[in-house]
Amino acid sequence: MSRLDATRESIAPVDRSLEAAVRRRLDNLTKPPGSLGRLEDLAAQYCLATGTTSPAVGRKRIVTFAADHGVAAEGVSAYPPEVTPQMVRNMVAGGAAVSVLARHVWAEVQVVDIGVNDLLEGAPGLVAAKVRSGTGNIAEGPAMTLEEATRAIEVGIGLAQAAHEDGVTLIGTGEMGIANTTPSAALSAALLPCEPEEITGRGTGIDDERLAHKVSVVKRALQVNAERLGDPLQALAAVGGLEIAGICGLVLGGAACRMAVVVDGFISSAGALVACRMSEHVSGYLFFSHCSAEAGHALMLERMGAQPILDLGMRLGEGTGAALAMSVIEAGVKVYNEMASFESAGVSGKA
Amino acid sequence: MSRLDATRESIAPVDRSLEAAVRRRLDNLTKPPGSLGRLEDLAAQYCLATGTTSPAVGRKRIVTFAADHGVAAEGVSAYPPEVTPQMVRNMVAGGAAVSVLARHVWAEVQVVDIGVNDLLEGAPGLVAAKVRSGTGNIAEGPAMTLEEATRAIEVGIGLAQAAHEDGVTLIGTGEMGIANTTPSAALSAALLPCEPEEITGRGTGIDDERLAHKVSVVKRALQVNAERLGDPLQALAAVGGLEIAGICGLVLGGAACRMAVVVDGFISSAGALVACRMSEHVSGYLFFSHCSAEAGHALMLERMGAQPILDLGMRLGEGTGAALAMSVIEAGVKVYNEMASFESAGVSGKA
Repeated sequence: MSRLDATRESIAPVDRSLEAAVRRRLDNLTKPPGSLGRLEDLAAQYCLATGTTSPAVGRKRIVTFAADHGVAAEGVSAYPPEVTPQMVRNMVAGGAAVSVLARHVWAEVQVVDIGVNDLLEGAPGLVAAKVRSGTGNIAEGPAMTLEEATRAIEVGIGLAQAAHEDGVTLIGTGEMGIANTTPSAALSAALLPCEPEEITGRGTGIDDERLAHKVSVVKRALQVNAERLGDPLQALAAVGGLEIAGICGLVLGGAACRMAVVVDGFISSAGALVACRMSEHVSGYLFFSHCSAEAGHALMLERMGAQPILDLGMRLGEGTGAALAMSVIEAGVKVYNEMASFESAGVSGKA
Repeated sequence: MSRLDATRESIAPVDRSLEAAVRRRLDNLTKPPGSLGRLEDLAAQYCLATGTTSPAVGRKRIVTFAADHGVAAEGVSAYPPEVTPQMVRNMVAGGAAVSVLARHVWAEVQVVDIGVNDLLEGAPGLVAAKVRSGTGNIAEGPAMTLEEATRAIEVGIGLAQAAHEDGVTLIGTGEMGIANTTPSAALSAALLPCEPEEITGRGTGIDDERLAHKVSVVKRALQVNAERLGDPLQALAAVGGLEIAGICGLVLGGAACRMAVVVDGFISSAGALVACRMSEHVSGYLFFSHCSAEAGHALMLERMGAQPILDLGMRLGEGTGAALAMSVIEAGVKVYNEMASFESAGVSGKA
């Protein structure tokens, strides 16, 4: 059995038997029941996912997968492909948005070369896990082979398991890859399914004309790969990307290790969507960090039954939304752990 | 001239002349322009409020004003009045929700007895600034005299100025006071203005029957005090509360000291509303932390032209929303200060 299949099969449902005890504790804290809203729900989900009524937040880590995309040649992005390796260097140097926001919330960032079309020599701390140097152009054929997609997923699984062994309990997804909203849109259109027009957005900021072109590229990708969209793994290999596969693997591996997995924005949600289609039990482990300003993300979240934690008009990716949301989830767990109860504080209950 | 009047007159508009330079810097950071959404807006507002293109976040402090309300005798709350002093003790002991969330974001909490109907002896760290032991019942007459309202506002002004001297740059509002959504609703109905039904909610969690009663109490308060609603100070004295007056003062004093002021939820917004009606320049200094689940808060925010940062279904008060939002504002300032530019990181611009 492949590592991917073994991981899929090992994912257990979250432990719903704990829910009553967790809610009882939350209701006994010195506040009106339910008055901390989502913070209470997040704490409860964290308990069920990690399988305990005595939760702790250990290390927090964001794993940012970087890869290039053959479809960039179609002119779907506002930025040139050399920005992918440039931003990888910026991230490991600590100057990217995700670097700043992760420091702010005391999370680590692990930057992973899973498919950048550059040697990336001398990038300190970069995790070298290149499966291939960028994907093929999905408008002309498959992004990668099934074997390559499986290997990229297994990179993510391995990093989730390594994080678990390092004491990480809250793991976030992130990505960097010029043009990667295009495969994310194509993959989501294939799996949800939905119309390319509904799910294709402006990415890093393209004008109306280029957006219309991008939609036509997504349609071509779906047409030329029509015979290869039969299951989630096939669709990922056909119209996805290497970082999207890595995210899918991180989500599967995180769920298998019973970690709380924080999903970043549009591209990360596409990776999480593939994972959810591979295992019915994954969704209970997922915390959707925010609703991106990228058109199509709201639809994706709705169709996945996901309630995003934040809505700050962000559309950068990298793991920036995951970083901010991690802090909110941790706040919920601290409320659960650290607040006084009516009894311990000597506070009267309802009149 | 009273300290209140001197403070009102000293509030300058935020420095809009800095906006172009601030936006230029944000646009040169290694991300597509505008792709960090509200984080960029918050950083820009923080710069304009504090009057610099080189912002720093110093100490962060939440000031939580506690007071009792004569109108509690009308049975408008789910909890008995003795909970006010009990919760004050819980807060100074560090077991309340605001204690936990402030620690999480590295903010201080200052708990202020501005009108609790209890001696509160032996509460370590409590700021003793009692103006009177609870207000009168607004359903039967004025909450307090104009002189008492002025003194309570000046307590807030003094605490804002002391915070500024302590190196606080980000100051948040909070409150504790059983029954205090009732005067907040009455005050908002008088000042916005709006119908009592639109602005009166379930507070700590009352049923339909008690909610209908609460609306009738708000109506009586507005009727019996109809001659005393002529200006914001009069309205505050007539149908407000001592903690609401303290919040109003903290907002005025914060703006006068050019601090960024983070407004918590429903009750804090009522205090901020009074402050905004006292000085046209205050609003530029205000960051509305979240949209409360308390019915009426969304309307209040809309009518004040406020865009809340978070929407987490919270309805607890104390400063809990302010704590979480402070961390998001600080994240925006760190993005502004710490991210690399396209030039410094050697990243290519748009193709």
